[in-house]
Amino acid sequence: MRKFLLRIAYDGTDFHGWQRQNNLRTVQGELENALTKLLGPEFRLGSSSRTDAGVHALRHPVTVTTEKTIPVWGLLKGVNTLLPADVAATEAHQVDLRFDAKRMALRKIYRYRFFESQIADPFEEKYSWRRRYPMNMPAMQAAARHLVGGHDFTSFRAADCDALHSRRFMQSIVVHREHKVLNVTVVGNAFLRSMVRVIAGTLMEVGRGRQHPDWVREVLQACDRTVAAQTAPGRGLFLVDVIYPPR
Amino acid sequence: MRKFLLRIAYDGTDFHGWQRQNNLRTVQGELENALTKLLGPEFRLGSSSRTDAGVHALRHPVTVTTEKTIPVWGLLKGVNTLLPADVAATEAHQVDLRFDAKRMALRKIYRYRFFESQIADPFEEKYSWRRRYPMNMPAMQAAARHLVGGHDFTSFRAADCDALHSRRFMQSIVVHREHKVLNVTVVGNAFLRSMVRVIAGTLMEVGRGRQHPDWVREVLQACDRTVAAQTAPGRGLFLVDVIYPPR
Repeated sequence: MRKFLLRIAYDGTDFHGWQRQNNLRTVQGELENALTKLLGPEFRLGSSSRTDAGVHALRHPVTVTTEKTIPVWGLLKGVNTLLPADVAATEAHQVDLRFDAKRMALRKIYRYRFFESQIADPFEEKYSWRRRYPMNMPAMQAAARHLVGGHDFTSFRAADCDALHSRRFMQSIVVHREHKVLNVTVVGNAFLRSMVRVIAGTLMEVGRGRQHPDWVREVLQACDRTVAAQTAPGRGLFLVDVIYPPR
Repeated sequence: MRKFLLRIAYDGTDFHGWQRQNNLRTVQGELENALTKLLGPEFRLGSSSRTDAGVHALRHPVTVTTEKTIPVWGLLKGVNTLLPADVAATEAHQVDLRFDAKRMALRKIYRYRFFESQIADPFEEKYSWRRRYPMNMPAMQAAARHLVGGHDFTSFRAADCDALHSRRFMQSIVVHREHKVLNVTVVGNAFLRSMVRVIAGTLMEVGRGRQHPDWVREVLQACDRTVAAQTAPGRGLFLVDVIYPPR
């Protein structure tokens, strides 16, 4: 029995998120189909994260446990031959059987992209949330500071989130602009369902001047999802990386 | 009666090219649908180019002639409200009624993108042609030099090209690399059907070492499409810009 850690990248546009669902195209579904062809039905799949519909990933960690004696490069090449064009495995390593992609994650890095332009750009449309007017970046950064540290993020979790408790540790939030793209890069140890997208939607209300940066502290303290802003659309969110302890 | 020059950008992935076809989704079709809603059925549409299926555009010139008294910003805003997410008008100007987007083009600039990587990248897949091994860029540049100047490009035109003659003037071809992307940027006054894609496919044969750079001169002189290489896929091609004389 051997365990492999794969990193996968996907354009989330045409996926109903990570998790397998009947009759819907999902990343897990496509990956399981490819692995079944390569390894037969006897394998176990693990994942660090369950991304929502439309969300993209650059380096999403996935574990594959199998009794098949396939070399690591054979797994990488084989799975890529069988995967559709909008998902690819970019790296593969053998790991200890006790390795757990979800529980052993030290840091998860997400990025939310706002595209600031009056005019649509067909090449940005699927990878960002467009705002017609430039947002107040210093105000957004000030608002974000209220979220850093250990907090109960009840106000920022989706109604259908199934996590046991809503306390999470937020390592950092950085708001930075590149040309017409305003990025919100969020680093934490774990996230509740839709949490980054609710944070993005809430910071947007500050960025457009509808709310004061200190309003975000009130939202956090309310522990009530209805006081935060709308959930930002999935297409602007990227799972950038997940970091594990050095081996 | 007034005439407007619009610049349009589109992600060609889900289009069967520029030209209207029954029961197929085309850029012209979507644009005509939007303009009909905005202006009624009485307008004339002109275009500098007819891009093939899958080909993208950053600044494709299109003219709209109408008797409606719509301001230029109203046309730009209105058409963008009605267009789908994968096509957008990025600029609009009023032009002289004698302006002809096709005949008055001084230069057309196309770029073909090769993505050099063993591993697929879901975010590059729709916008490039992937090659597993890095190509010989100096050899491609040397090969490209044979095509610069005025030539009969019969060897580089698609079988279904309907141009009256196949003499064209190639201003320049530049082969340049950015990170993992090898770009072939082609500037000319006009192009035959599929010409840039046949050039890209032919330069690729030189870049991978199957042919000597001087083979391209033989291909050109043969005036026979069957001696050139395969047509490179449309997804790697961008209509970058079309330049007109100063007004």
